[in-house]
Amino acid sequence: MEPGKYLQVAVVGVGGVGTQVVEQLIANPIYGFQLVALTSSKRMLQPTKDLCINPIAWKDALNASETPVDLSAVTSTLQELVKQGKKAVFIDNTSSQDVAEMYPALLSAGINVITPNKKAFSGEAGLYQAIVQASRSGRYLHESTVGAGLPIISTLRDLVETGDKVVKIEGVFSGTMSYIFNNFSAVEGSDESFSSIVKGARAQGYTEPNPADDLNGADVARKLTILARIIPELKDEQGNFPLLHGYQSVETTSLIQDAPASAVSNGDEFMKWLPEQDAHFSQMREQAAKEGSVLRYVGVVDVKNKVVKAELAKYPKTHPFATSLGGSDNIIMFHTERYGKRPLIVQGAGAGNDVTAMGVVSDILKLIRP
Amino acid sequence: MEPGKYLQVAVVGVGGVGTQVVEQLIANPIYGFQLVALTSSKRMLQPTKDLCINPIAWKDALNASETPVDLSAVTSTLQELVKQGKKAVFIDNTSSQDVAEMYPALLSAGINVITPNKKAFSGEAGLYQAIVQASRSGRYLHESTVGAGLPIISTLRDLVETGDKVVKIEGVFSGTMSYIFNNFSAVEGSDESFSSIVKGARAQGYTEPNPADDLNGADVARKLTILARIIPELKDEQGNFPLLHGYQSVETTSLIQDAPASAVSNGDEFMKWLPEQDAHFSQMREQAAKEGSVLRYVGVVDVKNKVVKAELAKYPKTHPFATSLGGSDNIIMFHTERYGKRPLIVQGAGAGNDVTAMGVVSDILKLIRP
Repeated sequence: MEPGKYLQVAVVGVGGVGTQVVEQLIANPIYGFQLVALTSSKRMLQPTKDLCINPIAWKDALNASETPVDLSAVTSTLQELVKQGKKAVFIDNTSSQDVAEMYPALLSAGINVITPNKKAFSGEAGLYQAIVQASRSGRYLHESTVGAGLPIISTLRDLVETGDKVVKIEGVFSGTMSYIFNNFSAVEGSDESFSSIVKGARAQGYTEPNPADDLNGADVARKLTILARIIPELKDEQGNFPLLHGYQSVETTSLIQDAPASAVSNGDEFMKWLPEQDAHFSQMREQAAKEGSVLRYVGVVDVKNKVVKAELAKYPKTHPFATSLGGSDNIIMFHTERYGKRPLIVQGAGAGNDVTAMGVVSDILKLIRP
Repeated sequence: MEPGKYLQVAVVGVGGVGTQVVEQLIANPIYGFQLVALTSSKRMLQPTKDLCINPIAWKDALNASETPVDLSAVTSTLQELVKQGKKAVFIDNTSSQDVAEMYPALLSAGINVITPNKKAFSGEAGLYQAIVQASRSGRYLHESTVGAGLPIISTLRDLVETGDKVVKIEGVFSGTMSYIFNNFSAVEGSDESFSSIVKGARAQGYTEPNPADDLNGADVARKLTILARIIPELKDEQGNFPLLHGYQSVETTSLIQDAPASAVSNGDEFMKWLPEQDAHFSQMREQAAKEGSVLRYVGVVDVKNKVVKAELAKYPKTHPFATSLGGSDNIIMFHTERYGKRPLIVQGAGAGNDVTAMGVVSDILKLIRP
């Protein structure tokens, strides 16, 4: 490819995922990319007319930069490149609502947007609809918002756009919830307490700093909203989605609804409070075991009955959610008209910087493959 | 989209899969397509300058056509459209070696090629290398050559092109073999004879007209060749693939190696001969059961040890190949550096006209999404 035809890439956010995105782009054996902007939360690097960002020493250069972050300057740079007939993409590796709100303007200017940031696709309907509208000019891709690098959104879009009808999507969408219940309610039995397993998960870095942010089910509700909005049968007659208020419209079972405010706002306080819930969870585990079942925190998009819910449910010990799952796997089952008797299943690690970055970079490859 | 910008589509072969491809294209709610050629094995339909192929009555029109098939005329039509700056694709829904040998010339002329036909990608190296060479001008996509509509090839390409290292791919790649062994060697036990299960599968249309063509393992060997050729670590120092002679280089266990020539060439003769093998298969099933295992016909691409093999193997009753599989499911596990402890798994129906056509049409969507 001629250097002038390289995809022009602005990377916003170089934390765990963002750093991996840059490394995977640089290491790509096939395609050429031109990095035109890099921003951390504090600093920014933009090339002058004569200077490209050094693909080897980019992080040192960024850390040494004295330019404060200016996302409107990044936008202008990309806009200029689009005007020159080049293909440009804005990669949002943050989890910021403010950055998410930039997407409609970026897309309208013909700039493509790729992101693992769930905010725009799971939040209020206005922003989401503005993005869909603006996508006539630029393209938005967000594979890693659900299942990280697993092919979930691309598979759902392929099913829908080739004319299949989704009947139900059912899965374990949170790596943290997966880990906790795979261990707490194992097929072969377990007697460790709930709080002890959460403590272990937190110590290994499998949870948010405050596990309350996993156990409230909001992350699962956000992912369900993202998927539900791709399914045409869930639109109402006005073309709006019933999930008008985003993930807050999802029927969500919080596992910590009785937690005091002090525990919800502070991880250490939360861990002190959690053992109070152990008897309650143990009782649910025993009840499930009596029925030959295990507990799994699942998400369901039931198209037929127009129900979208995140809940703690019982599954027989012979069900794939019991037999196949391990570690912090995600598993997603697509029940459709074509995949009728037997669902299409995708399974694997659904969190981690490297696999999340893989989802981002595979979206970038969709823009650049000849 | 302006009508002039529609993707120009020539569909070659309108059997079970081809018919579904046309129907899915016509029904697509989002994108526009222009059908510029349709061919059956005997007849052909090409529009004159003023006449488009009728998307409703296309099959009647094709059956009524008096134009004999002329694939060089189809090529010329597409070539002309490419010269006019239009995007064109040649869809090969046949399983013909002759049609496969057209790909390099089509690609060189800037015509994209999409196909579920395994011949070109699993056959001798010369044709495959010519295709890869010619793909600088046109793009070739063949998702449905492995796992039908399941995202197998796209997932493998995403893993490889984002810099992951494949350690091993292991799976049940044949829907027919899956059905036969899921029933013959079920987790809960089974005492039905091998020939009786094959007879039932044949009666339900789950096998080739002669089941010998499934049981010889060649179909699995072809799929393994297709996957192995996507993995850079399996190239030798000259950039050639060790699978130089295509699928015939794969270590393949035929389940019917003792069959007489008359049975290999005639399905009814084959079914008469097969019961002679029942004692042999029953003995293997018993041996596996004694070890707490089931029999599965699997394919393995072991990158680390550079072994590619199709074989009948024993798996513990707790393994996903035993617990998760049912019907005529395919299941494919990608063990990679990133998906290290726990593999990325894709599972679901791996055969059928509708899901195979879905794989073809999802490849077409990759060309046309804005």
